[in-house]
Amino acid sequence: MPDGRTLVERACRGERAERLPVWIMRQAGRYLPEYRKLRESVDFKTATKTPEIAARITLQPLERFELDAAIIFSDIMTPLEGMGVKLDFDPGPVLEKPVRSASELTLLDPEESAPFVLEALRHVRAELAADKALIGFAGAPFTLFCYLVQGQGSKDFMEARAFLRAEPAAAGRMLDVLGTSMSRYLTSQADAGADVVMLFDSWAGLLSPDVYRRFVLPVTRRIVGEVRAASRKPVIYFANGAASLLSDVRDVGADVVGVDWTVPLPRAVERLGSDVVVQGNLDPAALFAPEAELEQAIGQVVSGGAAARAHIFNLGHGIHHATNPDRVAFLVDRVGEASTVSAVEASR
Amino acid sequence: MPDGRTLVERACRGERAERLPVWIMRQAGRYLPEYRKLRESVDFKTATKTPEIAARITLQPLERFELDAAIIFSDIMTPLEGMGVKLDFDPGPVLEKPVRSASELTLLDPEESAPFVLEALRHVRAELAADKALIGFAGAPFTLFCYLVQGQGSKDFMEARAFLRAEPAAAGRMLDVLGTSMSRYLTSQADAGADVVMLFDSWAGLLSPDVYRRFVLPVTRRIVGEVRAASRKPVIYFANGAASLLSDVRDVGADVVGVDWTVPLPRAVERLGSDVVVQGNLDPAALFAPEAELEQAIGQVVSGGAAARAHIFNLGHGIHHATNPDRVAFLVDRVGEASTVSAVEASR
Repeated sequence: MPDGRTLVERACRGERAERLPVWIMRQAGRYLPEYRKLRESVDFKTATKTPEIAARITLQPLERFELDAAIIFSDIMTPLEGMGVKLDFDPGPVLEKPVRSASELTLLDPEESAPFVLEALRHVRAELAADKALIGFAGAPFTLFCYLVQGQGSKDFMEARAFLRAEPAAAGRMLDVLGTSMSRYLTSQADAGADVVMLFDSWAGLLSPDVYRRFVLPVTRRIVGEVRAASRKPVIYFANGAASLLSDVRDVGADVVGVDWTVPLPRAVERLGSDVVVQGNLDPAALFAPEAELEQAIGQVVSGGAAARAHIFNLGHGIHHATNPDRVAFLVDRVGEASTVSAVEASR
Repeated sequence: MPDGRTLVERACRGERAERLPVWIMRQAGRYLPEYRKLRESVDFKTATKTPEIAARITLQPLERFELDAAIIFSDIMTPLEGMGVKLDFDPGPVLEKPVRSASELTLLDPEESAPFVLEALRHVRAELAADKALIGFAGAPFTLFCYLVQGQGSKDFMEARAFLRAEPAAAGRMLDVLGTSMSRYLTSQADAGADVVMLFDSWAGLLSPDVYRRFVLPVTRRIVGEVRAASRKPVIYFANGAASLLSDVRDVGADVVGVDWTVPLPRAVERLGSDVVVQGNLDPAALFAPEAELEQAIGQVVSGGAAARAHIFNLGHGIHHATNPDRVAFLVDRVGEASTVSAVEASR
């Protein structure tokens, strides 16, 4: 497929098209009855490691909704198994034991240790319509570091943050190995057919700007630079809860910045600069509001993104498992309508 | 004791004294060996409900460190038992069943249903030196609502946030009952000897500004107004993770605004206005850094607060249980030194 043909890729390159592209974080997942049904007979880890099943799940939401992108069904922790980390999901990641040294990690060779993800991408790209983008992804180094050091999920990852301060050199080496590994991983995903790759920094918002700048920004920026140089495909960076970090997030240099639901897009653009492409940021809780209110909230996000160079509509966080799929259909429809009206108004 | 004699009270009223007052969120707790020892023979709930024990724990950190305030040992969920909610701690609050209607809540009568907290405050105030402030506290309505609807802790309280959107009228009635109850509760604490009261909104940061303004700001502002009118004592409001909400947080109208560790104080003051008194905001993880780095971080917070009308030094979140108490001694010492130097420089 020619470079940048899909609406999502055009937006990634800063182009405003006839309507806003839309996809939804965690769109392939538990809120879909067909996903829950499939998962009755296969556990999460097996699903992520079996290319046919992962591809099937990846495509499920696109069979229901007029979404502009598929995102490969996987988990940010999945490639860590290929780096020597023993882990399971319950449902969040649980490590056999915490990792606190780079010497316990091997550099990831994606073809060797995560071939199933690449194979799943090839499957999906072969089946996906040419006007839909395929998104690959990885966890950002700090977020992976949080799980490695803590050994499991946490609401504040204090052990990981304490380790970062107590053992800055050891932490830096871990972040570096994770950075190089995720750089390779995203490049391989792009080679396997991902049109766009995304770096999820789910826990970056736990850091103050100075700590982020010192430990996290350099390695994250390196990944973005390396992946773009090697693959010439756009990179989306999503730092969750990063309201205080937006100017540093801009310095990561990604093609697109994901914004969480707590920051109104006009304010995000103020901090990021109007030459930035944004992705986001409807509150996932808005999908539980009455229709009129949901519609208004969608309109706010659409018009809020108008100040940015370009905008990919999305939620500001993953969709909640209790969401009614009908509301997603409504959402996709309304985004199309609202953004077409906006485009018309803008062109007047 | 005459009104506003302690350093903390003077800061609450906007006065900059000879040095910065300092206390630490969760200063009476698990990082102290003497607390852990006491807790070997008494469970958490019993400790909060036995005035002599709660008073003993409240005073523990002041026997070790030159802190300027004691904060009553209790939990934000404690008064909810007096409102008809059945709950336990494991270690976070777990409800017998979630509450989704105001009809399941009775208005709190603090003297009747939480007399042990008031009794503990009287004990502490009687024992505490006259130059130390005693702080009472309550959970803010939205944070209590989160636990009530979700039934337990959560990293995103999506069920509570979804309920807020799906059932705005029912949610509003719950927030109202919680507001009136916490207003009474804080006023009773002030009457029982608290010199300052604090409202903890630990989960406000999960809300976008428009949702916060619609559902949370009015009832929170009402509490602050009522407590101040009834008790004439200052109110501190701490909304955690509220980087995107700071201008709305200002509108709550508290005497002091607590700031979490992710927002540099100069930026917080920019948003809050320089007539606001701030409390905070050293990263609790900084207590794990080497001494020189901790000292630098302390200096940054001290100088960062200089733009505010007045400043109470604190962490930007509760102290972590694995913190070495010696670092707290170091912290208290350094704050005294750094803020005295600042005061001297400011007076030049």
